[in-house]
This record gives sequence, structure tokens and C-alpha cells, in this order.
Amino acid sequence: MNPPTIDTSVRFDNLAALTQPRSVMIVGASTTPGTLGHTTVLNVLEHSDFAGEVYLVNPKGGELQGKTLYPGVGDVPAHGIDVALLLVPAESAMETLAACAARGVRYAIVFTGGFAELGEAGRSVEAEMRALAERTGMRIYGPNCAGMTMLAPRLGLTFSTEFRNDGRSGALSRIGLVTQGGGLGRSLMQGDERGVRFSRWFSTGNEVDLDSADFIHWLANDPATDLICTVMEGIKSGPRFVAAAQAARRAGKPLIALKIGRSDFGKKAAQSHTASLAGEDVVNDAVFSQYGVIRVEDLDELLDVAGLISRVGVRSLQRICVYSSSGGAGVLSADKVGEAGLAMATLAEATVAEMARHAPSYAALTNPVDLTTKALVDPLLAKRCLTPLFADPGVDVVLYPITSNYAATTEGTVRNMLDVARGGSKAFVPVWMSSRRGPAHDLLIQEGFAPFYSLRNAMLALKRCSWYAQQASRGDESESEVAGLPAVAPQVPLPCNEAQAKALLAEYGVRSPREEQAGTAEEAAAQARGIGFPVALKLVADGVLHKSEIGGVQLHLRSEEQVRDAFARIMANAQQHRVPQQAVRGVLVSEMVTDGVELLVGIHRDAVFGPVLTVGAGGVWVEVEADVARCHLPAGRAVLERALDRTRIARRLASHRGLPARDRAALLDAMQRIAALFLALGDSVQSLEVNPLVVLNDGQGVVALDAVIE
Amino acid sequence: MNPPTIDTSVRFDNLAALTQPRSVMIVGASTTPGTLGHTTVLNVLEHSDFAGEVYLVNPKGGELQGKTLYPGVGDVPAHGIDVALLLVPAESAMETLAACAARGVRYAIVFTGGFAELGEAGRSVEAEMRALAERTGMRIYGPNCAGMTMLAPRLGLTFSTEFRNDGRSGALSRIGLVTQGGGLGRSLMQGDERGVRFSRWFSTGNEVDLDSADFIHWLANDPATDLICTVMEGIKSGPRFVAAAQAARRAGKPLIALKIGRSDFGKKAAQSHTASLAGEDVVNDAVFSQYGVIRVEDLDELLDVAGLISRVGVRSLQRICVYSSSGGAGVLSADKVGEAGLAMATLAEATVAEMARHAPSYAALTNPVDLTTKALVDPLLAKRCLTPLFADPGVDVVLYPITSNYAATTEGTVRNMLDVARGGSKAFVPVWMSSRRGPAHDLLIQEGFAPFYSLRNAMLALKRCSWYAQQASRGDESESEVAGLPAVAPQVPLPCNEAQAKALLAEYGVRSPREEQAGTAEEAAAQARGIGFPVALKLVADGVLHKSEIGGVQLHLRSEEQVRDAFARIMANAQQHRVPQQAVRGVLVSEMVTDGVELLVGIHRDAVFGPVLTVGAGGVWVEVEADVARCHLPAGRAVLERALDRTRIARRLASHRGLPARDRAALLDAMQRIAALFLALGDSVQSLEVNPLVVLNDGQGVVALDAVIE
Repeated sequence: MNPPTIDTSVRFDNLAALTQPRSVMIVGASTTPGTLGHTTVLNVLEHSDFAGEVYLVNPKGGELQGKTLYPGVGDVPAHGIDVALLLVPAESAMETLAACAARGVRYAIVFTGGFAELGEAGRSVEAEMRALAERTGMRIYGPNCAGMTMLAPRLGLTFSTEFRNDGRSGALSRIGLVTQGGGLGRSLMQGDERGVRFSRWFSTGNEVDLDSADFIHWLANDPATDLICTVMEGIKSGPRFVAAAQAARRAGKPLIALKIGRSDFGKKAAQSHTASLAGEDVVNDAVFSQYGVIRVEDLDELLDVAGLISRVGVRSLQRICVYSSSGGAGVLSADKVGEAGLAMATLAEATVAEMARHAPSYAALTNPVDLTTKALVDPLLAKRCLTPLFADPGVDVVLYPITSNYAATTEGTVRNMLDVARGGSKAFVPVWMSSRRGPAHDLLIQEGFAPFYSLRNAMLALKRCSWYAQQASRGDESESEVAGLPAVAPQVPLPCNEAQAKALLAEYGVRSPREEQAGTAEEAAAQARGIGFPVALKLVADGVLHKSEIGGVQLHLRSEEQVRDAFARIMANAQQHRVPQQAVRGVLVSEMVTDGVELLVGIHRDAVFGPVLTVGAGGVWVEVEADVARCHLPAGRAVLERALDRTRIARRLASHRGLPARDRAALLDAMQRIAALFLALGDSVQSLEVNPLVVLNDGQGVVALDAVIE
Repeated sequence: MNPPTIDTSVRFDNLAALTQPRSVMIVGASTTPGTLGHTTVLNVLEHSDFAGEVYLVNPKGGELQGKTLYPGVGDVPAHGIDVALLLVPAESAMETLAACAARGVRYAIVFTGGFAELGEAGRSVEAEMRALAERTGMRIYGPNCAGMTMLAPRLGLTFSTEFRNDGRSGALSRIGLVTQGGGLGRSLMQGDERGVRFSRWFSTGNEVDLDSADFIHWLANDPATDLICTVMEGIKSGPRFVAAAQAARRAGKPLIALKIGRSDFGKKAAQSHTASLAGEDVVNDAVFSQYGVIRVEDLDELLDVAGLISRVGVRSLQRICVYSSSGGAGVLSADKVGEAGLAMATLAEATVAEMARHAPSYAALTNPVDLTTKALVDPLLAKRCLTPLFADPGVDVVLYPITSNYAATTEGTVRNMLDVARGGSKAFVPVWMSSRRGPAHDLLIQEGFAPFYSLRNAMLALKRCSWYAQQASRGDESESEVAGLPAVAPQVPLPCNEAQAKALLAEYGVRSPREEQAGTAEEAAAQARGIGFPVALKLVADGVLHKSEIGGVQLHLRSEEQVRDAFARIMANAQQHRVPQQAVRGVLVSEMVTDGVELLVGIHRDAVFGPVLTVGAGGVWVEVEADVARCHLPAGRAVLERALDRTRIARRLASHRGLPARDRAALLDAMQRIAALFLALGDSVQSLEVNPLVVLNDGQGVVALDAVIE
């Protein structure tokens, strides 16, 4: 049975009435300046270009901005309002939501905090909210959120006093932003100061109903958006996130994610902050990489990558030409190019020759290029030399490290550079390395060439952009076609002993060593003779899964006498480790397989994403080596192969210094079969681990020496 | 023979007359404003607090700033001038230097560029300069340098137009800076804008005579300096650098180094920029770590670490308490704490209880701490809660991520924080995470709490500071006492075959497997019988060092017949790989040692630093595993042990899942003996590699299976 492909049952709301509402109701509108309820009213009425109906609700009644304040939701003379904004105490949030639903409100944005993030009571209110949404069809956004900031056209469904200035500092970038919390989102919005100006920002809070995936999906279909950024503390639903990421990839829009709660400390902090499951971070890494999500690790990195891609688009940016008037900066830049795994471009002979016609004799015309201080003051020289450089087909990026700010001098130089860069097809990447800003810095931003602030971050961004470009063309890679799988789903008894696990593997075409079960030492010795020496003996006992840890495995037995001794040792060890006598079924006498490379292939069910396959160095040193890579299932052979190739042990499969090549094709085939078995076993099985899976010489296949299904 | 300890022959000039001159001569003084020759004169006469004599030289004669312009160096009416500054064309630099030396000038600073960095001709002029310095005793600083910037008291022996403003923006930090180039140095000097204000800067250029080590050493003894920073493209002399680093460590002054030319691209760029040897970067890493040099990787990191240490001193900063008013920032900070290998502090119960008395019920009082927006506006609440936090003995650092700039609100909060932080004994570490600066940002700098600009950099700085504190107490660790070494230096024939290499190792107490040389297949079979099966056969042939690559090694031979076959195969392989018949001496028949962990212990002579030991995973997979660590020799056992423990393979020496512990003590002993042998062999030997060195079970020692001396 070949495994199912990716879950297609995920459905997304089109959010049309939320993002382009015809009517908005503000519950908790306040006449007191400075309060959230007042600011929200101003944001909608004064600072948005909103032509729809606005209804205000406040129990005190009265009037605000020329509009009636209705005492209750029920008093508002309209039915089926598109969006209600709730600024009400946490205690009355449920009641207000119910009133909204009763009046046919389509979307309710709950700004109010004080729910799951405070503990059990809050979590149960959130469960009620979720139930209300399901029952009535009114979708809930939040609670504990900063709302929605749309800048083209302007619509601020948010209490933020900053909204009035959002998007006013310069041309908007075609970037959408989705964050759970408001704090990090607001920090990113202030990226406008460095030229990264998000045009939509959804802060989704505790996500009782609508979640980040809904907005990522919406942005993937938004014609005004080219690029999507998200900051996530938890992932509410793995399948929904994957589906949204796939929608973004299909739309050709890079998705940049800052997933926090990464380290153990961070995970703990995230759990107490939003009560959301941070998930296993190594799994997040694998999933992001598999589905083309660009993962960044801090706010500055997010702005750096978003700024770069929004400016130069998705393309390969691997061949760097460094242009600098500081020799040291040239060297340091070349260092960072190398460290990031990028390449210093080799300039065409014609480029160098053309530059040489104009440059002073002491200029450096190979990469890094340094036209010396002459280019700082001579615009004509700069133009003549830089034009061929910007036209060289071997160059993807011209990187310009600016080490110091010399006020007008630097400004003049930058202006010269921009005159050439503006017309060129290269990515022009200035890096502002001084602590002192100045007119040149501001000019770069103003002219749409926002600088990076560190070489490291510039290189990281170039690398990530190139990575995205390289993988963007991949289609759906979840299909895994393997021949000869059983037609019916296998049955597994749980807990499942080694022999049963191996039988299931055999059904799926993964062989184990020749082995026989023996109940006594004499039986074991006889079977060893039949199999041929050397053999291994392994304890068979119900409920004992990790045999080697209790001395239940004896290897390299070369004679019947050694087999008898080993049998006795295993029984003694079992007794010493309190394995109940009635659980002990005997031993497996097994052909020894020694000449091969030991790998581990395991699959477990991740709490967020479901089945995840792990491949890497196997044997007893698994934890010490920590040489494994993962991928999400279902996955095709190409995905499995990329995971394998992220491990060091994969390099041991090639022929090396007289050692033969190993059967890599059989390993990949076995990985597919093991994955198919796990998926066929169904949800009751939590994990399946084959360790070691020995990869024999090329053409000889692989052998599963041990397997555990739990 | 125990190895010699560190080279004590390095001598440093005291530089007194250079750093506190009584007289200065400027050769190339110019009356034309805007020229380097004019700016230099102004720097000394107008912008320095210099009371000594100043002599100006210009072939045109005349007067400048009320001083005579002497036409030539020989015309200056003074002998034994302390410092001459040379702004003369490259062509006349040598002549001018000779004239200076003839007039008894003590230090000549050559600003002029155009020497080694341009090629062979320049290199030969530099050799002449070096010879002149040696012959006359006049020390030369430069050429191709930006000179010397002293700010307390002010003395600018530099052509930089920026000098007039240097050190004017606020209180100076007690940090000295040594850079080869001027560009990166100037960039760092602009760190004044963020509160890191170097009080001395030496830009040493091409270092024909005085080098960075001289100035690091001088700063180590300078009473006005607590901390030393350096940017290096090349290291002119390894021993001098090590001696200077040791002087800094003895003085308790951290030395922070940005060594560029790190990646292959960077190395190539550095070679063409300063014609200096960048050295092997992995060796630089090992040497820096061994001698307590804090290595940073970019300009911003240098400023971050220098700023932190100059503010909080050298201490352990591992237990971090995050205080934030953004939940997301708290999580992200905790992530970064974990990723950096630091720890989130566990707050004392009393601290939490005291905060709970004042904080609102929805505040988070475990780490990360969030007093919510109430603390932003209520100074009293902030003071009451933060005071116990800043007093908690379990906290080393209070980290304060500032995600957004809310102008006056943020300023008020920061002011509240500073009121508490100023009096406390904790390191208070604000991190400015917004792209938008503002009054709070400037206040932090003004009050001496310069912020970091990224969490990552903050953590890196804390980690590096803690690392330095932890290793600062180490004394000289170069003594290596090993018993029973030969009293006389060994003799080694080069090239040296395996048997000879093993004999030398045996003299130094490192044993090899039992083995015999055999000239024929029959002899080999007979010797195998004597040694006991299984055995290995290895080709012995003059000039063939890497035998396994040509099929010269056959393992696991279990019978006389197998030995005879293997002998034939080895001879056939040798012939096929064109090993001359007369070079073939036969084979070594060797006891097989299989049950142990295979390491590599090698020593080579690094071009910059001399003998460097490498230890790590051995066998045929050395390059694939790339699991090695290095240290500089001579080195005591503690240094060798730290190197070993930086490898993954070291963890395989411990007992694990029923596998026995290996003889780690014998391994360390063997490392000392191999090091002693190498040092005793003298300079003609370039490398010694033992691979594999098999570490047997505890108590059973180690065995050198193969050794190459070249």
C-alpha cells in the first residue's frame, strides 16, 4: 500500500469580509482620549480610508465623533456587520461575542487579553469561544491580539497609537506580515525606518479560531503582496501551516518565518507566554526546509531577508563581487562570502581590461575591487569603471561595504555608485558598517537601496535568497511510489516484539538477518550451527524493547560453546534487571552482519506535524554522534535523499580509500518502504525505529538488524 | 628529553619616546589646506595637547603656522628627534628614512603607501627599510599606515581629518586599539557614536619593523588601558604575537582580536592586499583560545564585546534574567540564551515573593519577567519590583530587550530601569531591537549603558566575556612533564619509513603492535604464525608514506594462506602504482588490533606559529569526519586534554551502553610523548602523524598502528 500524499482536507476562509469590510462595529468605543477604545475609534474614522458604515458601542451611551454610542451590541441598528472589534473586559468577552454572533456579525476581532496566557480558566473560556465560532459560523480573530493593519488602502482595525504614522515614511514594500504577538510585530513595523515597509500586518494573538495559516494563505492569494513574513511562537496546526506554505510556494511568494521557542529555554518561555505548544525545533527546521519556508533567527535577519527579496526579487545571488575603498573591508567581506558558502565572482577579462583603461595603476581590479580614493572624488572614473563591473555576466551581486561615515564625501561616493547601480541588472548590496549614520545612509534608504548593517547578515540574506530561488521550482514531492507493497493494511500488536517488527518489515520488503528463536542454550547452539558462525544472540522478552541496555545482546559468537555461555549470560542479565520470568521467551540466534555501514531509520509522530522520518548514523553511538536529519511524511524519494545527504554518515556510503561503495539505492528504497509501513500502520503506532540498518556493499542491499515499533 | 617551554627570547621595545615624544618632525608638511601634509600639521599643532618641539620639512621652504619650513631633513636644527612623520612620495621614502636615521631620529612613522601591497618592487624596498632599522636602531612604524591616535592626553600623529573630532563625543573608554589597516580602524573609532570610545589607536600598516605585537605589549603595560582590541590581516611573527598575548593576560587585560583572512577567499584577498601571510585559520583559532585571546568575527562583534567588558569588567555572565514588556521578546531572548549555551537564571523565592507584593496579578514573575505595561508608566512599581531582581544572587545579568521605540514612553521606562540598574551590581544589558532610534537610545549611551543592537550579539558578548573570566586564572600551561624520555635528542633519517618512525615512538614510550618485516610470502606466513592470527600486512617501501591509498595494506588475515595471498596482492598493487622494484623492502606482518577507538595524533609546523598538535577521529575517514582539534606546542597535559575534549570522538572513550571505558589517561600520556618526540626532532622535521592511534580498554594503553614522519 503506497502512502497517502499530503492532506488535502485543509480548508481556508477567503477572509473577504474581514479584509475589505463594508461595516465595522467597535464594542468598547471610548470618549476618553488616550484609552485604547478611543484610539481604535480614531484609527478607523480618522486614520483609515474607510468608506463603510461604522457603529460604536458603549454602555454609557452618548456620542463620539458625530456618531451615536449604542449601549449594547443588541442596540446597533444593523444585522450582519462584517467586523466587530471587541475592547471589553475579559470577563464579559464571551457574552459580547455571543451577542455579536446573535446579530450575525461575520468576524469578531478580540483585542482583550487575559485568557490562555494566564492559565486554566482562560483556556476554558477560549474553548467556549472556539465552540461558539464552530456553532454560529462567526469567525473569531484573537483574543489577546493587536488586530489588523492594512496600509493599501488604509484600514486600521487596531488599538495601536502608532497606526496613524504607519506607512507614512515612504513607499510601501509589497510585503505582508503575520505575527502572533504584538510586540515583535510592532518592532518589525518600525523597520520602515530602514526602508522595509510592510503593507499588511495581521497580529493574531491566541488564535482560538483564525490562525496564522489563514493569513499566510490569504496573503498568498493577495494581488498586492509579493512576499510573506511571519513570526510564530507556536504552530496551532501543522497540516494547516504546511498547506498555507504550499499555497505561498505555488504563488511564487517566498515565506520568511521567525519561529521562536527554539531552544529549551525559549520553548519553556513560549509555553508560559501563549500556552501554545512550541513543538520540536529540529522538526520545525526540517519541515520549513522541505516546504521552501525561509527560516530566520532574529528580527534583524527577517528585515534583512525581506528587504533584499522585496528589492531584487527571487534569484540566485551566489557570485559576489566586492567593491570597496578599504582593503581591510575587502578582505573581511571575502571572508564572509567564504564562510556563508557563497563565491567571490571571477571577473571577465573584458571587465578588468575596461576598468584598467581608466583606473589608476595602483587600483586593485580583481575581486575585491578597489579603485582607491580616486573613485571617491571622481564621478567620471567611478562611472567608467563601475559600469562594466555592473554588466559582467559572471557577477550576481555587487557588494559595497561602507566602513566609515565621512559625511558629504561618503554621500558623494554613494551617489556615484547609485547612478550606475540604478540602471544595472545586478543586485547592488550596500553594507553600512559604521556606528555613525549620516546623509549617505539616509540617501541609500531614500533611493530604495536600504543597506544591511553587518556583513554577516548581508551574506545570510544572499544565501537564503539563493536557497529559495534554487528550490522554488520543486513541485509536490510527497508522492512515494514503491513496487510490491502489500495491498492491505498490516496489523500490528502493541507492544510489538523484535520478531514481530521484523516480520512487518519483511512484508514491506526490508530484510533482516537469518535468525531463529531458541528457548534453551542447547537449542541456540544447534541453530547457530545451522546459520553458520559467527552469530549474535538477542533476548526475546515481552515489554523489553531496548535490549542492549540490560545486557540482552551478545555479539561475535564463534562457537557452540560461546553460544551456550552467551545464552546463560543473557538470562542472568535479564534476571538481574528484573525482567519477569514469564515475559522471557528465549533468544534470537542471528546471523552476524558486520561488513557494512550502520544507519538508523526511524519515524515518529510529531505532536504538531505528524509523521517525521529520521535518518542518520546508527548503532549504539546515536546520541553521541547526533548525526541525523529529518523530513516530514509523506515524502517522495527526492526528499528522503536530501535528508540523507544532510548527514555526515551519508559520505561513508561512497567508495573511499580502497573501501567499496555501499548500496545507497537499496537504502533509499528501504527508507521509502519503512515510511510506507509506518503510514499504513495508522495512528495507534507512535514510532518505528530500525537501528542499526546495515547498508551492505553496492548491489547487496540493506539488512535491518533490529527494529522497535511502539 | 622534555620539551622546552615557550620561547622567552621575544623582546619588545618600550616605545616611550614614540608614545610620549618630546619632539616631532613632519616631513612633507604642506601649506595647502585639505592635503594630508597640511592636516597632519594641524593635527599636531592645533588638535593635540602637545607641548614638545615640532619641526616642519618641505622642500619649498617658507613658513606654516608660524613655524619655519626646512627644505630637507638635514636642515632641521635638531638631532635625536623622537618621532619623524613621513608624508613623502614612495619613491623618496627610503632616502628620507636614511636622512632621518642619519640625524638620530628614534622613531619614523611612514604614512606613505605603495610598497609590498603593490608587488615585488615594493617588497624589496620594505626589505631595505627593515635592514636600515636593524642597522641604525631607528625604529620604523608603517609604511602604508594611518599612524597613531592618542586621546588622553591628545596626540594625533596621523593625517586623518577626523582626528580633530576623535574623543570629543563623550567620556573615553579605557580601551586601546591596534589595527593594521586604517579603514577598519576608522570604522571602529566611529564606535564613539554608540559609546565605545577607544583612547588609543595604533594603525601599523605594512609593519616592516614595529608590528601589532609591539603595541599590544605596550598597551598591556599602559596604566590608562584596561582592555586591548586588535584587527589583524596577517600575523608577522607568531612567537611575538603569543608573547604579547601572554603579557596582556598576565596584566589581566582581555585581548579581543578580529583576525581577518579567515576563509579561503579572505585569505586570498589578504595576500593581495597586504602581501602578508594569513596563516591557517584553524590554527589561529586554536592559538587564540589557548592563550586567552577573545576572537570576534566582525566589527560590530568587536565593539559589542569591548563595550561590554569595558563597562562591567571581567566576570562570569552566564545566568541571565530577561526582563521585558513584550512576551514575544521574552521568548526570543530565552531562545538566544539557550542557543549561546548560557542559562536562564532561576530566581530566588524571596525575589519572586517581593515582586509579587507589588506587581499586578497578571504579571509574569518567573524568568522571563514581565511586569506588563504597568511598569512602563509607574516608576514606583518598576523600582519596587526591579530592586529585588537586581539584588538576586542567582542572577549575573539583567537583559532588557527593547523591541520598539515609543519615544517618550520608552525613554521614561528606560529612565526607571536606569535608576535601579545604576546602583546595582548586576550587569544590565539593554538590547535595542528596533530600526527606529529615539531619545531612550541616546539616553542609554549618555548614561554609560550603551545598548547592543541584536540579541545574538548580546549573547555572544556575554558568552565571550564569561569564557575569558573562566580561563583568565590559568597560568603558564606550556610545561609538559613526562617520565622516562630519552636524555639525548633522537636522530631521524628523512624520509623515514614506518618501521623507523615506530622505533622512534617506542624510544619515547609509545608502543606499536607486535610486528616483523618479511621479504617473501613464505617468510610473512611463518611470522604470522609466530605472532598469532589475525594479522595485517603492510607494504614497506622507501618513499611510500600513504600505503593504504595504493592498496598496500591488507587486514584481518586469518590463515597462512590468506597471508600468502595478501603478500602477492600488495606486491601487485605496488607494481601497478609504479613503486620502483628496488624501493620495495617487503611487508610488515603485524598483530591486528581491532578492539579500540581509532584516533589520530599529528603534529605539523605551522608557518606562523610553529609546532601545532592535532588530535581527533582517526582511521581512513579523517577528512570526512573532520573531527579534530588543535593546540600550539609546547603545551602541558591540561592544554592537550582541552583539545581532546573539543572532539566528538573523545566521548567515545567513556563507557557507554555496555561498551567498556577506554584508556584515556594512556592517550593523554601518549599525546605528551609524541609532542616531546616532535620537539626533540628539531626543525628539519615538518610533520609527524600517528594514525590510527588505537586507544584500548582502560588500563591496556594505546597502540600506534601507523606513523609517518616527514
